[in-house]
Amino acid sequence: MTTRWLSPAEQRAWRSYVSVSSLLEDAIDRQLQAEAGMPHLYYSILAMLSEAPERRLRMTELAEVLKITRSRLTYAVTRLENDGTVRREGCPTDRRGHVAVLTDEGMAILERTAPGHVETVRSAVFDHLTPEQVGQLEEICGSIARAIQGDNPGAGGEDLPWRRRSSPSCGDARTA
Amino acid sequence: MTTRWLSPAEQRAWRSYVSVSSLLEDAIDRQLQAEAGMPHLYYSILAMLSEAPERRLRMTELAEVLKITRSRLTYAVTRLENDGTVRREGCPTDRRGHVAVLTDEGMAILERTAPGHVETVRSAVFDHLTPEQVGQLEEICGSIARAIQGDNPGAGGEDLPWRRRSSPSCGDARTA
Repeated sequence: MTTRWLSPAEQRAWRSYVSVSSLLEDAIDRQLQAEAGMPHLYYSILAMLSEAPERRLRMTELAEVLKITRSRLTYAVTRLENDGTVRREGCPTDRRGHVAVLTDEGMAILERTAPGHVETVRSAVFDHLTPEQVGQLEEICGSIARAIQGDNPGAGGEDLPWRRRSSPSCGDARTA
Repeated sequence: MTTRWLSPAEQRAWRSYVSVSSLLEDAIDRQLQAEAGMPHLYYSILAMLSEAPERRLRMTELAEVLKITRSRLTYAVTRLENDGTVRREGCPTDRRGHVAVLTDEGMAILERTAPGHVETVRSAVFDHLTPEQVGQLEEICGSIARAIQGDNPGAGGEDLPWRRRSSPSCGDARTA
């Protein structure tokens, strides 16, 4: 099969996206590490739980909304449990399932950290985009998400991260 | 100071972006792990070297184009060196500097892996965007990059990843 190489415009857009995803991840992790002692993913776990009914979500649902593997979620939730911000409980309707619950301490940390986090997102992203670009960003990301996970993430393929046990990349532990 | 919370449209765009960055990272890492035994960052190191004059770049320049910390780059290059795809040499004009050089073996792996990688990027991203959206994506990412690193990355602040020794996030080792 002939390789369908990227056009110059596609290549520019792709490289720009890859650069920005590294820059943003770094800027957001840095702010959250400094102010809450946790990376972006951990903050997102607290934020998702805070919006759920009774501040609780099944681990399987949490992995799906965060788009991560179950093992990565388990690792993160264990750390948050040790810090006292999340509690894990058995699921009353599914003996094998587990539920993550945001504790009052977790809620307090989230409330204290949210303003600084939003300010970082605003000063890195939204202060520099027009309202049209905000809409364009949402549409572009929506198209990519549908391409990867289908229209209904709950019904998507077995390859999707939250249906797998482990992450693809063990090569770059990022502990350095 | 009053927190400038995100508007509903900004919130939707931001969540969509965060989801897509996880989904894309996973899809691309998975394809590259399967076909080349390396994650996206390692592939990007080989790709950047392949385009440089004499296939060599100073480590400091490489960290800057990849938007990562020097310690993360050092870790990755050490792994690539062990695999025989990259060689490290002293820098003739700077006794403390080091240069990374793509080996013939690295070039061969890159050439063998590139078609599958491009196909993944195309089927996840560019097959689903109009030419207008490709331009919008580049402009949006350009605005965000300038907001974080300024117009001239080489002159940017000490906080930028390639000017620091280490990454902010040691909490989520992602080895799970």
